[in-house]
Amino acid sequence: MSRVITLTTDFGWSDGFVGAMKGVILNLNPNATIVDLTHDIAPQNVEQGAFLFAASARYFPADAVHVVVVDPGVGSARRAIAVQAGKTLFVAPDNGVLSFALRDWRLEIRSPISSLPSPTRAVHLNKPEYWLPRVSNTFHGRDIFAPVAAHLSLGVPLEALGDPIDDWVRLSGHAMPSRAGDQIAGRVVHIDHFGNVVTNIGAELLAGMERARTVVRIGGRVVRGVKATYADAAPGELVALVSSSWHLEVAMREGNAAQALGASIGDEIVVALDRD
Amino acid sequence: MSRVITLTTDFGWSDGFVGAMKGVILNLNPNATIVDLTHDIAPQNVEQGAFLFAASARYFPADAVHVVVVDPGVGSARRAIAVQAGKTLFVAPDNGVLSFALRDWRLEIRSPISSLPSPTRAVHLNKPEYWLPRVSNTFHGRDIFAPVAAHLSLGVPLEALGDPIDDWVRLSGHAMPSRAGDQIAGRVVHIDHFGNVVTNIGAELLAGMERARTVVRIGGRVVRGVKATYADAAPGELVALVSSSWHLEVAMREGNAAQALGASIGDEIVVALDRD
Amino acid sequence: MSRVITLTTDFGWSDGFVGAMKGVILNLNPNATIVDLTHDIAPQNVEQGAFLFAASARYFPADAVHVVVVDPGVGSARRAIAVQAGKTLFVAPDNGVLSFALRDWRLEIRSPISSLPSPTRAVHLNKPEYWLPRVSNTFHGRDIFAPVAAHLSLGVPLEALGDPIDDWVRLSGHAMPSRAGDQIAGRVVHIDHFGNVVTNIGAELLAGMERARTVVRIGGRVVRGVKATYADAAPGELVALVSSSWHLEVAMREGNAAQALGASIGDEIVVALDRD
Repeated sequence: MSRVITLTTDFGWSDGFVGAMKGVILNLNPNATIVDLTHDIAPQNVEQGAFLFAASARYFPADAVHVVVVDPGVGSARRAIAVQAGKTLFVAPDNGVLSFALRDWRLEIRSPISSLPSPTRAVHLNKPEYWLPRVSNTFHGRDIFAPVAAHLSLGVPLEALGDPIDDWVRLSGHAMPSRAGDQIAGRVVHIDHFGNVVTNIGAELLAGMERARTVVRIGGRVVRGVKATYADAAPGELVALVSSSWHLEVAMREGNAAQALGASIGDEIVVALDRD
Repeated sequence: MSRVITLTTDFGWSDGFVGAMKGVILNLNPNATIVDLTHDIAPQNVEQGAFLFAASARYFPADAVHVVVVDPGVGSARRAIAVQAGKTLFVAPDNGVLSFALRDWRLEIRSPISSLPSPTRAVHLNKPEYWLPRVSNTFHGRDIFAPVAAHLSLGVPLEALGDPIDDWVRLSGHAMPSRAGDQIAGRVVHIDHFGNVVTNIGAELLAGMERARTVVRIGGRVVRGVKATYADAAPGELVALVSSSWHLEVAMREGNAAQALGASIGDEIVVALDRD
Repeated sequence: MSRVITLTTDFGWSDGFVGAMKGVILNLNPNATIVDLTHDIAPQNVEQGAFLFAASARYFPADAVHVVVVDPGVGSARRAIAVQAGKTLFVAPDNGVLSFALRDWRLEIRSPISSLPSPTRAVHLNKPEYWLPRVSNTFHGRDIFAPVAAHLSLGVPLEALGDPIDDWVRLSGHAMPSRAGDQIAGRVVHIDHFGNVVTNIGAELLAGMERARTVVRIGGRVVRGVKATYADAAPGELVALVSSSWHLEVAMREGNAAQALGASIGDEIVVALDRD
C-alpha cells in the first residue's frame, strides 16, 4: 500500500532517531511514502508541535497517516493513541498535540474530500503485538508509534490496535485564543525561520473587524492595522498580517520581528479595534 | 508518473513549509519522488541559490522537475515562470535563480542525455487553475510552485500553464566571472559546511593557465598555485583547488578557510598568473 | 528494484551534497527508496559516525544498502570498500566506520532475518566502470559511493565491483569499551539533541552487575545507580540509564546533561560496583 506517512517530532535531525523510525516503517510497509514535516519542534513543546503539525498536515492526501511525537511524558503512564477522522489517521501520545489538527481539519487543495467527517474515532494503543518486540523506555517514536503507523498504512483497522476511547486530551484554556466583542487575546505559538512571530489567532477570528482600524499589541509595542502583505510595510517596519498558515503574524519587512520584539513562544498578543 | 521533483529553497527545515509543499505535490501526483537539494539558502540570496541549485541539479535524471524558491519578491508583481530545456523542467520565480543551471546544463553521469538541447522554452505561470484554490501572499512555494511542478510531473504540457515568454531574468554583471587575458575576476558564492570558500569561477575559465604559476587573491591574502587536492597543503595552510562543483575553491587543510579569511558571500576573488 | 538505500555522512544538510548523491542514485535506480540517517556526524569523526550508523541501521530491512561517508582520507590512498553481511550491503571508506554495525548486527523487529549470518564478504572498490565518469578529488560520496550503492541495489554482485579483501579496517583499542571484573571503562561517543551523553558501553556489558549498586564516574561527577527511565530522577538531577540505542547514557531530567557535565565526545566514563 503506497500511502503517505508524515512525521512530526522534537527529535532534531542529527541523531538518527528519525532514520530509525523510517527503518521500522519500511520494514513493515516497503511501499510507504514517508515525509518529514519538521523535527525541530522545541523540545517537549506540545503546543508548538500541535500548531505546526496542523498548519502543514492539512495539505496532505486525505488518506495519509500522520505521526506526531512531542512526548514529555514518554516512559510515564500517559497513553499512546490513534485517531481516525474520515480517511485520515493520526498516531501520537495523548497530550493534546493533535488538538489543532482535529479542531480545524480541512483540505486546502482540490481533493474529493473537502471537510472532515465527524465524529472521529480513537483508540488507546494497548496491543503490544503491533509494536516492536523490545520497547525502550525513552523512544516510543521508534518502538510504538512507527510500527503502529506502518500497520495502519497497511490497512489494519483502528480497533485492532487498541481499546476505544473518547476522552483523549484536548489543549484548552490559554492554548486557545478568545474573542470578546472587538478584542481578541491570543499567544505566540511559533517563531519561524525568518523571525516572523506567528500566533494562535486564526484569520476567521478577525471576521467582521475592519482590518485597517485594528491595533495589535505585543511585547509593549503597538502595530497598527492588519495588512495584506509584507510589501505594505516600509523596510525595517513591523507589520501585522495573515500568515501563510492563515493565522495572525507579526513580521518585519527585511528584518527579524522576533528579535526586534524580543518575542518568545507563549507571549501574549492582543488585537483590538482602534477607538481613536 | 514516477518522476523526480527536486526542491531548493531558503525556507529552512524547521517550520513545516517544505512539508506542506510535499503534501501539495503528493496530493496531485502520489507517485512523485521528491528530493530535497537544500533549504538553507541564505534568506533571499538569489545568487547563492542559483549556484547551489546548478551544482546539484545536473546530477539528476534528465526528466526531473526542479523547483527553486528563493523569492524576495513574493507578493509583488514579479512573475512566476516555468522553463523547459530538453526533457528537464524548471519552476521558479523570475529573478535569475535558474541562470547558472540554464547556462551550463549538462549531466555528469552515464545517461542517454549528455547535453542540453537548445533552445529552451519558457512560460509565465499565469493560469490559476493549476494553483491551489486559495493563494497566500507570502507562500507561493506551496500555493503556486508546488502544484505547478506536480502538474508538470504528470505530463501537463508547459504551454498549458502560462503564456510563452523569452525575456526571463538572467543574472549578469557582477554575478558572472570575467577573464581578461591571464586575469580572472570572480566572487564568493558559497561557504560550505566545512568552511570551504566556493567561487563562481568555473574550472573551464582556468583553461590554458599553468596552475602551478597562478596566484589567487582573496581578502588581502595570497594563495599560490591551484592544487589538485587538500592533501597538497600542510595542515592549517590555505589551498586553492577545483571544488567538487568544478569551481575554484579556497580551503584550509584541517581548518576552516572562511573563518581564517573572514570571507563572506559576495567577496571578490582574483586569479592571475605569477610574473615573478 | 525498490530497495532501501540509507545515507549517513558528515556533509551537513545545507550545501546540496546529499542532494547530488541522491540524484546520482536515482539516475541509475529510479525505484530506490533513499533514507537519510543523519548528515550531522561531527566532521571527520569516524567513531561517532560508526556509532550512530549502527544504532539506526539495525532497524532497516535486511536487504538494505547502507552508505556511510565519514571520510577524512578522501583524496588519499585510503581504500573504498563494500561489505556484504547476509543480504545487507554496506559501502564506505575503509577507515573503520562500519565497525560497530558489523560487530553487533541484529534486527530488533519482526523480520525473517533475526541475526546476521557470518562470515561477511568484502571487496576493495577498484572498478571505475561502476563510478561516475568524472571523479573529483574531494567528493567520493557522489562520484564513487553513490553509484556503487545504486548498482548494488540493482543486483550487481559484490564481486563485480572490486577485488576481494578480508583485512578491512576495524576500530579497536580505546574505541571499544572494556570490562575487568566489576569495572567497565568506556567513552562518550555521542551527545544527542537533548544533551544526553551517550557512551560506547553496551547494555550487555552491564549483565550480572546489580544496577542499583553501580556508580558511574564521568567528568569528576559520580552518578549512583543505573535507572530504568528519566522519571526515576528528580528534575535537574543527573541519571544514568540504558538509552534507546541500548547503551549506557547519562541524562539530566528536564535539563541538559552534556552542559551540566561539560562532556564532550571522547571523554572517559567508568562504571563500577559501589563497595560502600
